[in-house]
Amino acid sequence: MALEGVRALVFDVFGTVVDWRSGIAREAGPFLKLFGATNADPFAFALAWRRRYGPAMEEVRSGRRPFTRLDVLHRENLEAILPGFGINPSDVPASALDDLNRAWRRLDPWPDAVAGLTRLKSRYIIAPCSNGNIALMVDMAKRAAIPWDAILGAEVSQAYKPAPQSYLGSAEALMLPPAGVCLVAAHNADLAAARACGLRTAFVVRPTEHGPGQTTDLKPDQAWDIVAEDFGALARALGL
Amino acid sequence: MALEGVRALVFDVFGTVVDWRSGIAREAGPFLKLFGATNADPFAFALAWRRRYGPAMEEVRSGRRPFTRLDVLHRENLEAILPGFGINPSDVPASALDDLNRAWRRLDPWPDAVAGLTRLKSRYIIAPCSNGNIALMVDMAKRAAIPWDAILGAEVSQAYKPAPQSYLGSAEALMLPPAGVCLVAAHNADLAAARACGLRTAFVVRPTEHGPGQTTDLKPDQAWDIVAEDFGALARALGL
Repeated sequence: MALEGVRALVFDVFGTVVDWRSGIAREAGPFLKLFGATNADPFAFALAWRRRYGPAMEEVRSGRRPFTRLDVLHRENLEAILPGFGINPSDVPASALDDLNRAWRRLDPWPDAVAGLTRLKSRYIIAPCSNGNIALMVDMAKRAAIPWDAILGAEVSQAYKPAPQSYLGSAEALMLPPAGVCLVAAHNADLAAARACGLRTAFVVRPTEHGPGQTTDLKPDQAWDIVAEDFGALARALGL
Repeated sequence: MALEGVRALVFDVFGTVVDWRSGIAREAGPFLKLFGATNADPFAFALAWRRRYGPAMEEVRSGRRPFTRLDVLHRENLEAILPGFGINPSDVPASALDDLNRAWRRLDPWPDAVAGLTRLKSRYIIAPCSNGNIALMVDMAKRAAIPWDAILGAEVSQAYKPAPQSYLGSAEALMLPPAGVCLVAAHNADLAAARACGLRTAFVVRPTEHGPGQTTDLKPDQAWDIVAEDFGALARALGL
């Protein structure tokens, strides 16, 4: 059987389970209009916000900054990108910034995700191994009916992917060896980091995560343990 | 409405959600027979094991020992009580000790618990605020179909109840103020410690947790926010 000895599947979330680009654009549209950026492209806004995600976490990974929840980094990044869209953050009420920041908790899953996770849950422990913090993941899951067994990831491990501790801490919390855990992700770099820690790997292709012109992560870079086109296909590959 | 402003219900687990006494006795019975303690009372064994629970955690709470998962404390306590039942732990294979130790992951919920939690989950975030570690709580929930939204508690907070950090760390992980969280427990002392931290409180009576002759926690010691006879009554009290 595929993934022999694996007891837990842990998931990248932004891009793999949920469609952050559409979700952020959906909420950014009315916000941009309301605060005067009437011609701004909400999808460009989503990309700009997401682009600051890696560098903000790198401050933590490098040790220059103590571990800080992603909600806080998102909020700082939001204020940082607003001027580029012609909005002065100090002209926006804090409550409106807070609300837009919580759009990350209101992202919709890809259409196959919840049904696939429900099938996978029948045999495996399923948990996020996301850089999103616990409160963000819990609120997202409640809204979207994502049936996690536990919330693992950066906040529990106190480390951001792709730092080894982010993967190892998730396995350790379940008291499983790394090879007893499989990371499911749409990103080759994430899987490569997990494999280097001894985790098993499943690649699920999300060809429109970055929009219609996406050029990255359209195919596996390595021979991952499983390659599947969506979560339904992943469940089938596992005999579920 | 009762519990105005509360977004999360967090639960004591051993005694409040699951019946540890019957569950441990059920698994200890065959173990005691197999290893020669043919006349030992499995319920007395369960009580003896549980009696060492508090003192073992106190080593951590006092700072004399770094935070150590409950699974590890349970395993040490198991070896400590065996001689009192006429069993030399070194005569028992480690695999048999490990398996009995995992009986804490195979405890059955009280009959009303899962149905009640399912109703409560429709409005509130529900999570354990237990001294049990993450892996223990996850395995227990998978087996018993307990529909937690997240696994909080001692391991996430790195503190054992009734230390304030155990309650505050659970609220903090959800990014909620203490008053936005209600502890549900069958133990007055647990509720008193949570109230002292600013959490709301719900007492659910479990009159046979310690057996038919139970004398403690048969009634509320304080005017808790809610007092209910079981989880169904708690859901009703909240209009669910």
